[in-house]
Amino acid sequence: MKIGFIGSGNVGQTLGLALIKRGHDVMLGARTPSKLVSWLETFGQNELASVGSIQEAAAHGEIVINATPGTVSLEALREAGSQSLAGKILIDLALPLDFSNGELRLSVANSDSLGEQIQRAFPDTKVMKTLNTVTSALMVNPLSLADGQHDLFISGNDADAKKEVIGYLKEWLGWQSIIDLGDISSARGTEHLLLLSSRVYGAFGHPDFNFRIVG
Amino acid sequence: MKIGFIGSGNVGQTLGLALIKRGHDVMLGARTPSKLVSWLETFGQNELASVGSIQEAAAHGEIVINATPGTVSLEALREAGSQSLAGKILIDLALPLDFSNGELRLSVANSDSLGEQIQRAFPDTKVMKTLNTVTSALMVNPLSLADGQHDLFISGNDADAKKEVIGYLKEWLGWQSIIDLGDISSARGTEHLLLLSSRVYGAFGHPDFNFRIVG
Repeated sequence: MKIGFIGSGNVGQTLGLALIKRGHDVMLGARTPSKLVSWLETFGQNELASVGSIQEAAAHGEIVINATPGTVSLEALREAGSQSLAGKILIDLALPLDFSNGELRLSVANSDSLGEQIQRAFPDTKVMKTLNTVTSALMVNPLSLADGQHDLFISGNDADAKKEVIGYLKEWLGWQSIIDLGDISSARGTEHLLLLSSRVYGAFGHPDFNFRIVG
Repeated sequence: MKIGFIGSGNVGQTLGLALIKRGHDVMLGARTPSKLVSWLETFGQNELASVGSIQEAAAHGEIVINATPGTVSLEALREAGSQSLAGKILIDLALPLDFSNGELRLSVANSDSLGEQIQRAFPDTKVMKTLNTVTSALMVNPLSLADGQHDLFISGNDADAKKEVIGYLKEWLGWQSIIDLGDISSARGTEHLLLLSSRVYGAFGHPDFNFRIVG
């Protein structure tokens, strides 16, 4: 499948690589694609890996993945253009983190979420919030932790698109347990989990953990 | 031990009952103590159960437990009086829920928490935020779920007081795994978890679950 990434940092590169290994045709979209030469070089002459502008990556993808920092996601997606995103599934894994006052805060909080903001800005796009509660290493290798016995969450309005994405998460990445939290407003739940997981990180001294719902 | 509850709703009554069964001398403090007649009647002539005003309950407790609705906690604790709370451990299990606009929001969010507000208002009190991520039924009976293999969190500034409370949670209620998240500002993490657990509740159709950190 053709997959376009908006954003080409650690998360985009790690997830992009995993999807190429599964045989997908992946384009990473960046403001400065030339910075991704080293990422491209990891593939040698692999025709499944390419880089382009944000607009090109959005147009390339049958599915588009938002892997930008949350504070610039809306701007980057507007640059991609609503036309290139219309009718498509947009997997939003961005974290709305704001460190501007020296401590971790969310740039959108409480009665709203980045997932909802994106859905409102792109009403013809099927926004699916998922993968935003785990590290990029765990995203692509859930079996590396406790034989995969931990949970991923998904939020989104379109039931068919959600079913499709749940299938991809299982088939492409090996996720075993994916909890459907409901419509896109439930992205508030997973986005705010950062305020807890950052403290668990501090308590454990490492980020190699995930949540499991027992019940 | 003498334990005073500020707040006498479902959580106060359930936890109060559990502590009386463990042999503690519990006073529930309420604005209208006469409303607690039925609660008192569940104990017959048990001398360990009593009800009183908010001020009386705070004065009664060697440890005080804030079991008020989060939106009125500061007001109720001010009514209890800083003198009655000074030097004591205050276990804060209140949820800062605000349904005023028709949907679940937090009354304090993002870069602050109710736990911190209480600690700032009562600097001579050792505020320990815990038990705020589980139902009252699970609070007093963690072994009822998955043999107790799920997690409780605690946040607070005073290391000795925290150690003491962790001991009580294990000894009195049977909690097996209690994660120390750090100082009271980490109460943001557990208070915001409501935004996720309310959605998990919706997905599961029942509230009998808890979180387990795998890692």
